[in-house]
Amino acid sequence: MRIALSQLNLHIGNFEGNLDKMLAAVASAKSEKADLICFPELAVCGYPPRDFLEFDDFIKRCQNAIDTLCKASQDIAIVVGAPTRNPILAGKDLYNSAYFLYQGKIQAIQHKALLPTYDIFDEYRYFEPATEFKTVSFKGKKIALSICEDIWNLGNENPLYTICPLDEMMQENPDFILNISASPFNYAHAKTRIHTVRANVKQYKIPMFYTNMVGGQTDVIFDGGSLVVSPDGQVFDEMPYFEECLRVYDLAEVEKGGIQREQPKEKFRLIHDALVLGIRDYFSKLGFQKGILGLSGGIDSAVTAVLATEALGAENVRALLMPSQFSSDHSVNDAKILAENLGIQYDIIAIKPVFDAFESSLAPQFNGLAFNVTEENIQARVRGTLLMAMSNKFGHILLNTTNKSEMAVGYGTLYGDMCGGLAVLGDVYKTEVYELVKYMNTLPIGKHQMIGVIPENSISKPPSAELRPGQKDTDSLPPYEVLDPLLFQYIECRKGPGELIAQGFDEVLVKRVLRMVNINEFKREQAAPVIRISAKAFGMGRRLPIVGKYLS
Amino acid sequence: MRIALSQLNLHIGNFEGNLDKMLAAVASAKSEKADLICFPELAVCGYPPRDFLEFDDFIKRCQNAIDTLCKASQDIAIVVGAPTRNPILAGKDLYNSAYFLYQGKIQAIQHKALLPTYDIFDEYRYFEPATEFKTVSFKGKKIALSICEDIWNLGNENPLYTICPLDEMMQENPDFILNISASPFNYAHAKTRIHTVRANVKQYKIPMFYTNMVGGQTDVIFDGGSLVVSPDGQVFDEMPYFEECLRVYDLAEVEKGGIQREQPKEKFRLIHDALVLGIRDYFSKLGFQKGILGLSGGIDSAVTAVLATEALGAENVRALLMPSQFSSDHSVNDAKILAENLGIQYDIIAIKPVFDAFESSLAPQFNGLAFNVTEENIQARVRGTLLMAMSNKFGHILLNTTNKSEMAVGYGTLYGDMCGGLAVLGDVYKTEVYELVKYMNTLPIGKHQMIGVIPENSISKPPSAELRPGQKDTDSLPPYEVLDPLLFQYIECRKGPGELIAQGFDEVLVKRVLRMVNINEFKREQAAPVIRISAKAFGMGRRLPIVGKYLS
Repeated sequence: MRIALSQLNLHIGNFEGNLDKMLAAVASAKSEKADLICFPELAVCGYPPRDFLEFDDFIKRCQNAIDTLCKASQDIAIVVGAPTRNPILAGKDLYNSAYFLYQGKIQAIQHKALLPTYDIFDEYRYFEPATEFKTVSFKGKKIALSICEDIWNLGNENPLYTICPLDEMMQENPDFILNISASPFNYAHAKTRIHTVRANVKQYKIPMFYTNMVGGQTDVIFDGGSLVVSPDGQVFDEMPYFEECLRVYDLAEVEKGGIQREQPKEKFRLIHDALVLGIRDYFSKLGFQKGILGLSGGIDSAVTAVLATEALGAENVRALLMPSQFSSDHSVNDAKILAENLGIQYDIIAIKPVFDAFESSLAPQFNGLAFNVTEENIQARVRGTLLMAMSNKFGHILLNTTNKSEMAVGYGTLYGDMCGGLAVLGDVYKTEVYELVKYMNTLPIGKHQMIGVIPENSISKPPSAELRPGQKDTDSLPPYEVLDPLLFQYIECRKGPGELIAQGFDEVLVKRVLRMVNINEFKREQAAPVIRISAKAFGMGRRLPIVGKYLS
Repeated sequence: MRIALSQLNLHIGNFEGNLDKMLAAVASAKSEKADLICFPELAVCGYPPRDFLEFDDFIKRCQNAIDTLCKASQDIAIVVGAPTRNPILAGKDLYNSAYFLYQGKIQAIQHKALLPTYDIFDEYRYFEPATEFKTVSFKGKKIALSICEDIWNLGNENPLYTICPLDEMMQENPDFILNISASPFNYAHAKTRIHTVRANVKQYKIPMFYTNMVGGQTDVIFDGGSLVVSPDGQVFDEMPYFEECLRVYDLAEVEKGGIQREQPKEKFRLIHDALVLGIRDYFSKLGFQKGILGLSGGIDSAVTAVLATEALGAENVRALLMPSQFSSDHSVNDAKILAENLGIQYDIIAIKPVFDAFESSLAPQFNGLAFNVTEENIQARVRGTLLMAMSNKFGHILLNTTNKSEMAVGYGTLYGDMCGGLAVLGDVYKTEVYELVKYMNTLPIGKHQMIGVIPENSISKPPSAELRPGQKDTDSLPPYEVLDPLLFQYIECRKGPGELIAQGFDEVLVKRVLRMVNINEFKREQAAPVIRISAKAFGMGRRLPIVGKYLS
């Protein structure tokens, strides 16, 4: 038996586009004599469809897509994810299902039992969990059909769940396991995924074919990395990350095993590739080609510009250099050098004239009050307005350059440097930005395919917003080497003040930083969506009350 | 037996403040010889605590609050909501529980079974559903203790759920039902709530005491309206909406029944009161006194200014009038009249000088390109920046004046008129704003306690953004009397294009409007939080993908 896995970059709600991709994959798989082809979870509508699932019309279109795929299943079995209506008026309206199509008919539907409802996931908002588990018979083989999270409670060891779907299916002695997934990327996830798939295979001693989705859906990135694991627990194949792929496997060979093939998993290579894909897909899925951003001469905007250039092409990226009266000469120079290294178009617009116009207009009200954070914010908002004006006039999407450390402590101006359609680095801590630069400076990038594209000066100088004379980030923030590990423990690991102090963090610092994080929830509420690369990013995956008075 | 219901305005994560309020209520109830006092769902930590529940430290503080309440329960039983740890490592970590405290001990804990996971609710993200149901014995009576949603599957008629907790408890023949709730307001909810409580009472033929939370938590408003229903199905008492209240009831009298007492439920009075409370609590819970907003002379900003004045006092509201070169004289006059009617401070700052400075700065790039939406947006962003500058300098929160119709179709400028900490009218359709004005103009408002505070001119003139010569909303939008019913059917009722056309809406209009709604998800993602007054508001209760390509 020959089994095809198709990891596709699907588009939420783009039924025609998704169908076209699947039908093309079916044709390819047939030409390679596959008996069966697997597509990812909820492939017909893309993942996560969120509240579109509450629209009857949306579910009908999903069913229409299944009908079309049925017709294409005359000579090849198709396994594909789609929502199914719950026929019983008790419990949620829908199931999250794997369809098994063959000979023009729906041969079987297996619903998902373990519904992730944490972090970015809201599956229990829409779906009723499965309670029945049956294998599917096909060409003399019995197949255990499973959906994503269903393989993540092996031995009932996951505290979130109370049943293990594959344990149920094993009573029928299946020959192999299929899993269709939409399992989002974070930089540590590929290892965990392989570990989990292998652990299932070792437990049940039959092969597993695991198909994952690929592509960016605004904030959430799917990395592919579909897996075939032999009964001996070896990884027979791992598909590439961050790109579409179709491969056909011979079941007998997979059963033989003895092969171990994995993709490289270095953290900053993964983060880099995820961010490039995230930018590219955000633009293409919204129908935009061109991006714009502000280049300050600092490291964050430099990294964002490079990533944008890789994602969109140098010809599609434009930069504004917007020095203030407090900007150092080298800032403008560093930004210029980067733009020239990349071969992107740039303009220089000094912000002082507009800033002065604001100060004059507000003079009667401000009436001699001292320069303070208000004026810093005005400057940041002049920049935001200039960038948005360019973006409106010429059809760009503005890329936001805020990093995760700044976003965490509210070190940024709402409607100023927090403007943008997509926050490229919003899940990358400042100290990680430096690591990312080291990796990126080894790649040939931009129009001139240059190595070391980011100027040394942007890397080595102390971070500054340059909004008042001699300003440095460390005037108001702890050094990032101190701040970032604390933020990581609070945000990713959800440690409270007692635990942080026990870990050795200074008590005064802990209180100060946690307060900064919590009182700035109102800013993050209005922030651009953040490309998620960690296990806990700002956005849908982290939901906190704005008026909460806890550690604040 | 004397039973006290205490509907309190609690503050998420403010453990000390919440405890103080509850201890004061306990003292009052004791002085009125109550045997038992009931507080709302999750009263110790406030509702909704969201991901604070993922912090061990937060749960510990909840437990500490329960310990303190225990000590206060020597001579009076206390029923109060708090999270409980799930001792079993299978399923979610927590339960959403009702504690029954008496004589210094936890006498019983009943967990919640029906966990709302729709609209703004995410309870299954945190909580494991209860599977055991036992009544509590107290002073010779058996009490059926229930939590909010647990009474919302009477007769298993709610399609969302598969069990009915009170059915289970009735096997023990309880004498009365207690329900502790955190049931959010919408303008139609009070009727539904009464209907549901009465239906339960009619089914089980025993009284119900229902305590609800009150207060604004950013977007979500709790309206109180706690209920006592006699076995004959009559409403023995309904507490006031939108304010704290403590009342003590004699069980024997409630059992006698024959009394029907309800609060008035006119739609626009409810909406008005909810918005005033929403503003007041947003400010007080964040520790702010003063609000600022832009007054355009139009209806939306007028209504917002009036609501702000009612919520914060005329002395705490400041307005900016920011005419553009396209503003009509009467706009400034209408705004001035309103400010004077209210007795609030106002300043006039023309935006042309700053706008001109932007145009000069961008002249090399724009190079003679025609005035278009870019320039309209620049003007809106100049206003946003002026308002934010005043807010930063003087410690105001900026109130946003966008209405639901505009927010739906993206008729507004991101970082311009979409600026603000709280969108007061973001859940009120334009046609509803006019109805709201009719009601508000019957109330004595502002420093001068004036009736008819909103000038007739602001009400009668055609809506316009005044960002280009002679601009009217209807240049780019259908008339609001046509648009709003369509939006209501799409947003509140989740009707798809087929259903809308079948309802009689014009096909071209349906496609155009649905597309406008869907392609503007990116703007709403960065919008200010919206005070929720309907069953489907923009924000946490409506979750849609930005890059989705569905009806767009």
